[in-house]
Amino acid sequence: MNRLSLNQWTTRRWSVAEAVDGCVRHGLEAIGLWREHVADHGLEATAALVRSAGLRVSSLCRGGFFSGPDWREQNHRAIDEAAVLEAACLVLVPGGLPAGSRDLAGARAQVAGALAELVPYAAERGVRLAVEPLHPMYCADRSVVSTLAQALDLAPPEVGVVVDCFHVWWDPEVFASIARAGSRIASFQVCDFLDPLPSDVLLGRAMMGDGVIDFRPLRAAVEAAGYTGDIEVEIFNADVWAADPDEVVATMKKRYAELVLG
Amino acid sequence: MNRLSLNQWTTRRWSVAEAVDGCVRHGLEAIGLWREHVADHGLEATAALVRSAGLRVSSLCRGGFFSGPDWREQNHRAIDEAAVLEAACLVLVPGGLPAGSRDLAGARAQVAGALAELVPYAAERGVRLAVEPLHPMYCADRSVVSTLAQALDLAPPEVGVVVDCFHVWWDPEVFASIARAGSRIASFQVCDFLDPLPSDVLLGRAMMGDGVIDFRPLRAAVEAAGYTGDIEVEIFNADVWAADPDEVVATMKKRYAELVLG
Repeated sequence: MNRLSLNQWTTRRWSVAEAVDGCVRHGLEAIGLWREHVADHGLEATAALVRSAGLRVSSLCRGGFFSGPDWREQNHRAIDEAAVLEAACLVLVPGGLPAGSRDLAGARAQVAGALAELVPYAAERGVRLAVEPLHPMYCADRSVVSTLAQALDLAPPEVGVVVDCFHVWWDPEVFASIARAGSRIASFQVCDFLDPLPSDVLLGRAMMGDGVIDFRPLRAAVEAAGYTGDIEVEIFNADVWAADPDEVVATMKKRYAELVLG
Repeated sequence: MNRLSLNQWTTRRWSVAEAVDGCVRHGLEAIGLWREHVADHGLEATAALVRSAGLRVSSLCRGGFFSGPDWREQNHRAIDEAAVLEAACLVLVPGGLPAGSRDLAGARAQVAGALAELVPYAAERGVRLAVEPLHPMYCADRSVVSTLAQALDLAPPEVGVVVDCFHVWWDPEVFASIARAGSRIASFQVCDFLDPLPSDVLLGRAMMGDGVIDFRPLRAAVEAAGYTGDIEVEIFNADVWAADPDEVVATMKKRYAELVLG
């Protein structure tokens, strides 16, 4: 239970101060922060608050979106922020096809090039980059990196990977890819996959137990691969966002114990 | 152009008789039939009509759904129908997780077992089975077979595969898998992938040119792998279904020439 981390988007109504307070109140030791929330509270103030609360920052979400014209500047800024926050990693969501483009191979090559270029900048600041393969239904609009194997192939070896159950559960190669990833696993995230998907497929990320994923084998696999870091719960779901955040965190702890650890 | 086939679901308002007439009127040589439409017209009557019109039956949709309790009987019936229709293949959509189940590995093993069991029944009737990997967003509800590589691994070598651009375009391994599939490619289907997806993700299958897929490299790959069969256009899309079917077929021919062959 001491490895359970609240990804801030799960309780997105909460400000940084409310989320930190919520983590402490519910006995959590780690939090996954989002740059938007951090900016609202102030970068240095957030770093000080989290430190004084005794919380680990399991990840900072997010950099990436390498098809944008200002990707370099945006990602340098995200790396700088991750350094100040002493985040365990900076999550990179690669981005989809450029508007109007059908050149998938080109977009993937662009991601590989951008990741390679960011490695020294991140290393100088002690920040661990973690590229996140997203479910293939987001290939066009959010991530041309669609499988864990592809992320491992495409990113330089210094770049870690995020294993998010929602994105990888369907993959026939997921257990082989997790084993292959080994020490490159920089983050492990859990949330369930709704069936049927809601009308906005981005919001199909549900509380554990409300969908179709069997979490235990995935947790066992990342642990067998050597991952000992925090386990983040990151939910995008209209019902969860509408609920009382304190109840969401209480449910999250219960379901995590039953369905992820159990 | 003589390999272009109208999958009947693209003009689903048309009965078998109207679709056969439409194919002839628009100079198409092949049609992909659906069992529901065939049942409405009568099996033997459909076979006679298609034959007298000089059309090839590029596929019969569909068998599969191996998680259902009556999968064996249902698939025997579908094989019998494909034999009468002299379809080039019977498309098998494997089915998702059984209701309430999270046992993905078990569901996949069940599909492998069912396919192996159907091989002799199909062979005795001269019917070619073709398993269709579906996009991973349908893993829970429609197909636990999510990639072409997985279909090739899981099905006996006598079972062919359907390469449907909509389902495979995102796959980083798709070109390698097509090359590996070789003579097992039993059907090649085209339709575009909408971005953003509509609220019912089943209806994200669009007219070529309305989405994000680059078709030519995929067509070239299946041809390099030795596929010389028909190329079916299978669209599930509310706007296409609402349009005049004759206009749909005219647009289909134009887009096919420009974007698939061109």
